[in-house]
Amino acid sequence: MDVCFTPDEVVPSELQGRIAVVVDVLRATSTIVEALANGARSVYPVASIEAAVRLAQNMGRDQVLLCGERRGLPIDGFDLGNSPREFTPERVAGKSLVMTTTNGTPALLATTAAQSTLVASFLNLSAVVAALAEAGKPVTVVCAGREKRVSLDDAVCAGAVALGGERSPDLSRGLPDTAQAAALLAGARLDDLTGLFAETAAGRQLIDAGLGEDLEFCAQIDRHGIVPRFHDGQITI
Amino acid sequence: MDVCFTPDEVVPSELQGRIAVVVDVLRATSTIVEALANGARSVYPVASIEAAVRLAQNMGRDQVLLCGERRGLPIDGFDLGNSPREFTPERVAGKSLVMTTTNGTPALLATTAAQSTLVASFLNLSAVVAALAEAGKPVTVVCAGREKRVSLDDAVCAGAVALGGERSPDLSRGLPDTAQAAALLAGARLDDLTGLFAETAAGRQLIDAGLGEDLEFCAQIDRHGIVPRFHDGQITI
Repeated sequence: MDVCFTPDEVVPSELQGRIAVVVDVLRATSTIVEALANGARSVYPVASIEAAVRLAQNMGRDQVLLCGERRGLPIDGFDLGNSPREFTPERVAGKSLVMTTTNGTPALLATTAAQSTLVASFLNLSAVVAALAEAGKPVTVVCAGREKRVSLDDAVCAGAVALGGERSPDLSRGLPDTAQAAALLAGARLDDLTGLFAETAAGRQLIDAGLGEDLEFCAQIDRHGIVPRFHDGQITI
Repeated sequence: MDVCFTPDEVVPSELQGRIAVVVDVLRATSTIVEALANGARSVYPVASIEAAVRLAQNMGRDQVLLCGERRGLPIDGFDLGNSPREFTPERVAGKSLVMTTTNGTPALLATTAAQSTLVASFLNLSAVVAALAEAGKPVTVVCAGREKRVSLDDAVCAGAVALGGERSPDLSRGLPDTAQAAALLAGARLDDLTGLFAETAAGRQLIDAGLGEDLEFCAQIDRHGIVPRFHDGQITI
């Protein structure tokens, strides 16, 4: 079990034979989990707005929903932003989504060397933990972070994954420093996630943008039992 | 107050007008503090073995002590390694030291854009905290880390600096995610530093190399009251 607090820490050759778990709690991976749980067929994460528009045109613009954010806000001409509350069954069931976000997408794209990549958030924490236990492979959690720095919401979620759903950071002894640090953060702050999020830079930005309800939404532990997988450029369950 | 968990996170332009505090608990900054407290005149941190030898030759080989490590072990032809226990008054009083270490030196050299750079370890924690309070400037703690990843010993020391000598991580609310994370780690693990060090990759490497006593040594809080400063290529008090 290893933890990368930002995509910059990922060394692709070290992901070989491992399961990567991508975490961007506020909000990309929470939104992906919500969208797929609500019936979206697949999510295509792409690096840029231009690439998103191009892919949507190639797939047939009316066949897909363009979604994502820049600076936390919806993108002009896109169908949806990056608030999980937008991704209702009415909006997304049966649809393919093309998504570009500031931090989450680069984290996903950094894991292509891994044997497989799972998408995790608090919304599907226990399902991911169970899938990892069943797979029995070495794991690297890759946090999206924020502007190439640690983001506390992601770090606490990574720690929760590292602890396998338990609460005692003592279980992390013997792991790499990165995983021990994440587990200590989870042990300290798992109890009040909405309060934690409100103290993070990502959470404060959302509150300032009038999207404070997203914090409470993304703090729901085990709202869904699905484990999205990223493979061949798309995320499906 | 900001914390960089590795030198890679440092953005030089963002250090302007700030005080940088460099932390490499196991062991470079602990060793520098011990050496200067024991009467060394100054420490010159340099990036490579070759640069260290060249600088020593330019300064007059018999005027300086060459010291440092690679993979935690002393360097062939050098006078001292990187164990603080070697830097006794008998060995270092009145001497200039030229030092090259794997992680600590790059961290020091990453801070040249800062208004000033202080050298911190648990050995001089309270003195650094007092100097920062007196200066009243914004602070960036730069951890040496380990192989471009977070090192728990450094992160806990950074958190102790961020908390200003207090113990409650609640004091970090409102700080950037990085400083909050460091403060949470300090809050969780300040109480048994030797035990903590023994669980880190850096500590385990020292124990394996027969240098386990360095852990206990570097865990001494406030052994010295000095605040070394790095300026013009050298560290002095």
